[in-house]
Amino acid sequence: MKDIVVFSGSAHQQMAEEICEHIGTQLAGTRISRFSNDCLQVQLLVNVRQRDVYIIQPLVPPTQEHLMELLLMIDAARGASAAQITAVIPHYSYARSDKKDASRISLGGRLVADLLVTAGVSRILTMQLHSPQVQGFFSCPVDQLTALGVLADHFRDADLSNTVVVSPDLGNAKNATQFSRLLGLPVAAGSKRRLADDKVVIDAIVGDVEGMRAIVLDDEIATGGSILELTQRLRDYGCLSASVACTHGLFAGRAVERLRADHFITEVVATNTVPPPEWPELTTLSVAPLFAEAIDRIHRGRSVSKMFKGVDPAYAPPEAPAGLF
Amino acid sequence: MKDIVVFSGSAHQQMAEEICEHIGTQLAGTRISRFSNDCLQVQLLVNVRQRDVYIIQPLVPPTQEHLMELLLMIDAARGASAAQITAVIPHYSYARSDKKDASRISLGGRLVADLLVTAGVSRILTMQLHSPQVQGFFSCPVDQLTALGVLADHFRDADLSNTVVVSPDLGNAKNATQFSRLLGLPVAAGSKRRLADDKVVIDAIVGDVEGMRAIVLDDEIATGGSILELTQRLRDYGCLSASVACTHGLFAGRAVERLRADHFITEVVATNTVPPPEWPELTTLSVAPLFAEAIDRIHRGRSVSKMFKGVDPAYAPPEAPAGLF
Amino acid sequence: MKDIVVFSGSAHQQMAEEICEHIGTQLAGTRISRFSNDCLQVQLLVNVRQRDVYIIQPLVPPTQEHLMELLLMIDAARGASAAQITAVIPHYSYARSDKKDASRISLGGRLVADLLVTAGVSRILTMQLHSPQVQGFFSCPVDQLTALGVLADHFRDADLSNTVVVSPDLGNAKNATQFSRLLGLPVAAGSKRRLADDKVVIDAIVGDVEGMRAIVLDDEIATGGSILELTQRLRDYGCLSASVACTHGLFAGRAVERLRADHFITEVVATNTVPPPEWPELTTLSVAPLFAEAIDRIHRGRSVSKMFKGVDPAYAPPEAPAGLF
Amino acid sequence: MKDIVVFSGSAHQQMAEEICEHIGTQLAGTRISRFSNDCLQVQLLVNVRQRDVYIIQPLVPPTQEHLMELLLMIDAARGASAAQITAVIPHYSYARSDKKDASRISLGGRLVADLLVTAGVSRILTMQLHSPQVQGFFSCPVDQLTALGVLADHFRDADLSNTVVVSPDLGNAKNATQFSRLLGLPVAAGSKRRLADDKVVIDAIVGDVEGMRAIVLDDEIATGGSILELTQRLRDYGCLSASVACTHGLFAGRAVERLRADHFITEVVATNTVPPPEWPELTTLSVAPLFAEAIDRIHRGRSVSKMFKGVDPAYAPPEAPAGLF
Amino acid sequence: MKDIVVFSGSAHQQMAEEICEHIGTQLAGTRISRFSNDCLQVQLLVNVRQRDVYIIQPLVPPTQEHLMELLLMIDAARGASAAQITAVIPHYSYARSDKKDASRISLGGRLVADLLVTAGVSRILTMQLHSPQVQGFFSCPVDQLTALGVLADHFRDADLSNTVVVSPDLGNAKNATQFSRLLGLPVAAGSKRRLADDKVVIDAIVGDVEGMRAIVLDDEIATGGSILELTQRLRDYGCLSASVACTHGLFAGRAVERLRADHFITEVVATNTVPPPEWPELTTLSVAPLFAEAIDRIHRGRSVSKMFKGVDPAYAPPEAPAGLF
Amino acid sequence: MKDIVVFSGSAHQQMAEEICEHIGTQLAGTRISRFSNDCLQVQLLVNVRQRDVYIIQPLVPPTQEHLMELLLMIDAARGASAAQITAVIPHYSYARSDKKDASRISLGGRLVADLLVTAGVSRILTMQLHSPQVQGFFSCPVDQLTALGVLADHFRDADLSNTVVVSPDLGNAKNATQFSRLLGLPVAAGSKRRLADDKVVIDAIVGDVEGMRAIVLDDEIATGGSILELTQRLRDYGCLSASVACTHGLFAGRAVERLRADHFITEVVATNTVPPPEWPELTTLSVAPLFAEAIDRIHRGRSVSKMFKGVDPAYAPPEAPAGLF
Repeated sequence: MKDIVVFSGSAHQQMAEEICEHIGTQLAGTRISRFSNDCLQVQLLVNVRQRDVYIIQPLVPPTQEHLMELLLMIDAARGASAAQITAVIPHYSYARSDKKDASRISLGGRLVADLLVTAGVSRILTMQLHSPQVQGFFSCPVDQLTALGVLADHFRDADLSNTVVVSPDLGNAKNATQFSRLLGLPVAAGSKRRLADDKVVIDAIVGDVEGMRAIVLDDEIATGGSILELTQRLRDYGCLSASVACTHGLFAGRAVERLRADHFITEVVATNTVPPPEWPELTTLSVAPLFAEAIDRIHRGRSVSKMFKGVDPAYAPPEAPAGLF
Repeated sequence: MKDIVVFSGSAHQQMAEEICEHIGTQLAGTRISRFSNDCLQVQLLVNVRQRDVYIIQPLVPPTQEHLMELLLMIDAARGASAAQITAVIPHYSYARSDKKDASRISLGGRLVADLLVTAGVSRILTMQLHSPQVQGFFSCPVDQLTALGVLADHFRDADLSNTVVVSPDLGNAKNATQFSRLLGLPVAAGSKRRLADDKVVIDAIVGDVEGMRAIVLDDEIATGGSILELTQRLRDYGCLSASVACTHGLFAGRAVERLRADHFITEVVATNTVPPPEWPELTTLSVAPLFAEAIDRIHRGRSVSKMFKGVDPAYAPPEAPAGLF
Repeated sequence: MKDIVVFSGSAHQQMAEEICEHIGTQLAGTRISRFSNDCLQVQLLVNVRQRDVYIIQPLVPPTQEHLMELLLMIDAARGASAAQITAVIPHYSYARSDKKDASRISLGGRLVADLLVTAGVSRILTMQLHSPQVQGFFSCPVDQLTALGVLADHFRDADLSNTVVVSPDLGNAKNATQFSRLLGLPVAAGSKRRLADDKVVIDAIVGDVEGMRAIVLDDEIATGGSILELTQRLRDYGCLSASVACTHGLFAGRAVERLRADHFITEVVATNTVPPPEWPELTTLSVAPLFAEAIDRIHRGRSVSKMFKGVDPAYAPPEAPAGLF
Repeated sequence: MKDIVVFSGSAHQQMAEEICEHIGTQLAGTRISRFSNDCLQVQLLVNVRQRDVYIIQPLVPPTQEHLMELLLMIDAARGASAAQITAVIPHYSYARSDKKDASRISLGGRLVADLLVTAGVSRILTMQLHSPQVQGFFSCPVDQLTALGVLADHFRDADLSNTVVVSPDLGNAKNATQFSRLLGLPVAAGSKRRLADDKVVIDAIVGDVEGMRAIVLDDEIATGGSILELTQRLRDYGCLSASVACTHGLFAGRAVERLRADHFITEVVATNTVPPPEWPELTTLSVAPLFAEAIDRIHRGRSVSKMFKGVDPAYAPPEAPAGLF
Repeated sequence: MKDIVVFSGSAHQQMAEEICEHIGTQLAGTRISRFSNDCLQVQLLVNVRQRDVYIIQPLVPPTQEHLMELLLMIDAARGASAAQITAVIPHYSYARSDKKDASRISLGGRLVADLLVTAGVSRILTMQLHSPQVQGFFSCPVDQLTALGVLADHFRDADLSNTVVVSPDLGNAKNATQFSRLLGLPVAAGSKRRLADDKVVIDAIVGDVEGMRAIVLDDEIATGGSILELTQRLRDYGCLSASVACTHGLFAGRAVERLRADHFITEVVATNTVPPPEWPELTTLSVAPLFAEAIDRIHRGRSVSKMFKGVDPAYAPPEAPAGLF
Repeated sequence: MKDIVVFSGSAHQQMAEEICEHIGTQLAGTRISRFSNDCLQVQLLVNVRQRDVYIIQPLVPPTQEHLMELLLMIDAARGASAAQITAVIPHYSYARSDKKDASRISLGGRLVADLLVTAGVSRILTMQLHSPQVQGFFSCPVDQLTALGVLADHFRDADLSNTVVVSPDLGNAKNATQFSRLLGLPVAAGSKRRLADDKVVIDAIVGDVEGMRAIVLDDEIATGGSILELTQRLRDYGCLSASVACTHGLFAGRAVERLRADHFITEVVATNTVPPPEWPELTTLSVAPLFAEAIDRIHRGRSVSKMFKGVDPAYAPPEAPAGLF
């Protein structure tokens, strides 16, 4: 079997080290220089010839810097005759730019996918893309992991009586439904209504939440606006309190401050796909073991989807219904 | 300006002729042969050298045959030195295959996009893709039209008092919302719940429908199962009757028979992106004028999005909010 | 060495199983679904990560369906990180479309080759292409097998006294000449004349056939028209009877009926590159062992051409003459 | 309409000038330098920005030099922002390398096609390829001209009584058949037999030639060996004399000497796709007017195939027969 | 002729406006949004269908941001069916990363060239690349302008008696030599010596500078270190004073402060390929008219090189010497 | 590990054999045929399926022939399913064509790089490219070796007292500087001045050479003109004698004769990257061991740069300075 070499860009060194620890390898060194004209240059400090290279870099702010670092690292690995190059992107933020909802708009999710392939990437390993269609933007294989099992494990030990899983958006409630099944809980959802072109409100809760405790599940929390609007509605509908859980905890702008100030929220849980903010009360669950196992399975040619059997039906071949669509 | 030549595959000759009539040109001849070993061969019967070629072919059953015809026509046009080749695909059915919801599954929406580009297509002109992300599957420009305006015009003349627009799926109600605004009507939606992996039910109606007449709007009607389940729920919630409208009226399997048998439904309206079934009571609205105008605008280098200003906000540059996502 | 995984499309399951038996492996499962809009979807049921994948699918009627199946299977294997993907196409029927013999005509043989590469194929394994130039249509390596040895073995046990090998077309008699040498027999050929653009007749036999028994050899039998015209001429020239042998026995249209009715023909022999028709008297020779050995040799990095040393000079490096052309 | 600029490599300057004269333009200058390390460099001496560039260069000996010149000229035109680049290759000699008739052999006809596309060519204009399949080796459009009409015009004025058209190879007699029809003459052909791997003899004449005068037609004459062997057989079969006609008159090695020494041959006719040898008695017909007209038609977007209506059925859309293959 | 549309990224809006003024067109609007996750999105506010699009963006700090903006703008223009897209990059800073001077290092100059082509650029218009070889990194046409003429014009009016042109690096003195010829002045140069891997000193002046006034010419001034070291040496060699001129005036870090403090320097002159710093005494010459004329010439299909005849021999076809290398 | 197979084109068979001897393998056979129309055809005589193939061919005169041979060999290896194909090009002569120093000029260095990739090469192994930027012309990995260590070893045993290393061109003195450090000697250089567009003279020597013996180091000697001009100047500056050393000893035209006639030159040393001329007094150092070791390291996945630690700083990761450019 070919040797494995793991590098990290500067976006999330800590997670890279944690992944390496689980794989049982040393994180290989990288030198990233910034020259006086602000251009970046990358040098890989370990021989990669004919080896399987993994480069760990979530696309978090400063996003353009981290993206360019990643592209340069891939370029350096290719030029140095790496056998295969896997970009490990725990959070692929450009996935949000996945549709042309105005004329003459850029399609960042597809463009960045093409740039990665141009730089020389052979495969992508990521977690929870914004929409499932984004996988089709890549012309190389993509392995997508899910944190639903890790998040569910966290809540399993708690008192789950009188509890309901709530999705902020009924239109995107697939993950919450699956999550509720893992915990054996009922599910509810907020119903979003677009007031104006740029203003969305949650004006109703579908499903019973009165007198219950909520676990709010979302893929990603950025400014926290949706969550806060949801908790407001939950209060209106007689819900008692809310735990908040998400995969990608970006907490941009005044998110931490605003979430802390909402006393309806009893707990916030996120994974470490992006570097956690300064926020002692935040519960951060590590998905490094998942990434480490996926890398090991990729390297050994074993199925990655088997890791999530029972967690997510997408990973276990379902019976195809006769007339699904 | 370069000359324009329009060809049609065998999928929907009638619409091609209607489009040509609106453009004011003659449909150019095509000879499609099937040889004894079942392989297809295509010959374009008009010179296309340095001309802008448009090939009209929705991907309707027999889908594989029509797809191969389209690929061979594009190949023939490219080999004959066409300046630009636009595939006009009023219904891009492979768009349904837009995500990997199981392991080791094919991604037809992306594959067919790549096949079209390989055959030599320069641009795609289509209507109402299954999900907006599918546009990103193409590495060539895509112009996507909407039939919302045409459908709204149909209902505008009717008595719209006491009427509500209903979407079968709250999770995908963006088009219904926009449609209701064009008519100045309220909106409601069915709430889908997945019972088992392969069984989806509509178990609730969000929004007020009691004592009202419904206009049910869906992108596409295939077997009609969703519509029938929705009308059942509408009845339960005290709704009086339903008009049904859709862009792509496939009416596969026993759809016509089943929809006819449901007397709650007072009218079914579809456009002619696919060849209409034998069903005298069906109201078929032609989108040929829209396609003709789009082809004319593409050919003259004028904006296609301007055609839909006021119809769909996606076509008019909105004010970009500070923190949209 | 990497693991080997063999899949089959729906075109010729029986041959796939026979090949697997000879390799000593199990045919891996595939789920092919057809949705209500007639689109196909494929799911490979066995892990293929970093493995050498072989997909068996001759392009036989319904050809467009089988081609799309094959493309979707290749796409699924690529997306699931297969190391190498070999399309095993015992009969590549689109090879008949190998030249532009009219203006603005499609070139299916080249287009389908490009589609296969676009879908992600790494290598093609096929048998007896319609013209040797078709190999150049592929931008990936092609291994082409020959059934001449298998066909010769069949006749070797028979009484070959007073026998002559006859090719229907002197213009394409290379295989018949080689075949006659394997059996130590003389060769003769029909001389084709084109009467009108679409009408070809065999109006003469070149070489001595009077009072002899013929073995007619052709690459492929479709409608059987050429064979029946040849036997007519052979009769005219005093030939006694004919055995008919071919690699690809398509027997399209009324071919079986017509060949059966010609009592000049004493035997028809074909291989199983395509599924044999219902025809008890047909002698079907299996080329599955050849394909199995070729797959094994490809997998082990051994020469495939060595399999045919002595059978076909194309496979043994000949002395290159000073002024061959 | 875009401006047209015509350049010539060093292979056949005279023909380039003749073509320009017919188009009514000036041949644009090119500077080809050979440096002390034997590398070539090309400079185009006329502005080509946004213009349609035609580069005339048959692939004649020294073939590698002329090929590299052509590639460098295409590269220079592309780098200088030409709108479209057409390589005008009256004789594409690498077409002879069109099949893998031995294992691990190069496929020059396809490789050179790919190199031309890599250098940046948009279209190929050529005459009479060695096999019709070679057109499929190019991933860009190819316009193929025929000299059959020019050759037929030459013989039309002569006494054609008691005359027969003879093809050296019955296996490749399609052009001779078409040629005979243009002149209203019967056709005959030599029957080639391969004695050993590297030795081919013509051992019979199919068709009646006794007491007749022959017009021998071949695509290309290289060493003249085939022609001399054919005239030997024609003598044996009682033929009286032979005129020899070909499209590509290479006359390599001792061809001129040997053909001159054969007094059975009364006349040799060739076109100027390659520079004619020193041979006063050779009749050289110019195809420059054909190339000039083709360039003009390409430039004006008119059909090239129409030039050959009545000359070659390939250029006029034939009625496609129901079961052609 | 196709319409022309000019857009600007956020790097150097002022120069874009100046260019548009000279072309006589209006700068078209662009909306660049930054979302809460720091991803960028671009929308072009003017129809570009079938038009020639020019996007103006030097790669200046924050370089990664400006590069990503440029890529997204190209992507948006391509998706909106622009006919041709020219990236106007007055300063291509990644050109500094043009060689692998250490193992496993990234090659930014080539990578960024490939990214631009992937995004969909058709042509590059730039000024004075760091090394002439960088042009070869692009697989699309590149037009490179020179500011030598503009800089020479500035000095032509001054008193040029007793003046010498000095290049900081004798190893890269080609531009200074050409510049001195334009002014009819002698030339001298500093001789650089590498002390350690990362330390370069100018330890000698080649050519006579004693008692003379120097015009120091460099392609680019970043930190100003080289210039200051050169003026130190010029003082040592008895030079009286120095004017400093460059094409790309980056003035990074403490460059302005340090150059101001050196009283040997009497004047600093730069062009506006990058936004000028806050520095009242700096003489900034506009190259906007050059870019405007180049865009106009590209658009009209006229030669760009003719603009610099007499300014730089690279733009006028020189007589190619017999044995140049 | 995969098997290794080494082939040689006809350019430098002797070096190929020497390399094989050092690797401990047999040079695999190749048959290169030239047909009567001057086209080349290549056949590899050893199975290459799934093997790592190395093809040795410097681009020396007749350069076009050798280039085409190399392209055909790569094509044959790819078509025969080689796992990886490395072109070993000890002298890449087209690297001289690395910049557009005139308008509408070809860029051979980049074009040939693209042609090699098109033919199917996976990696390049070469020595001392003309400019370091040329590496960026290749879209595949390039390993570049240096002969500085081999050349230094040669001089180390000689009397080095009173000796100076001299570069003909101060502008390109990086290698001479590095070479002088390896020997612990001072360095000097000629200063080139361009008199006219096509005439370059060395008009000064920078550094002290009076009364000393010179070792002149250049990358490549073609016609020897530069060397002879340098020795003339060295004489003028009081230098005593010169040893001449270079990597690529082309000795084109009258170079041998002219260098022999210059009695100031005491010794000429070159490596065998190109076949050495007939010149008994020439000292030829073999770099075959370096190429053999590099091939072995590439094959085993070990670092090639480590071979040159201490020889050339480019191969050992230097400390990246804060503001290098």
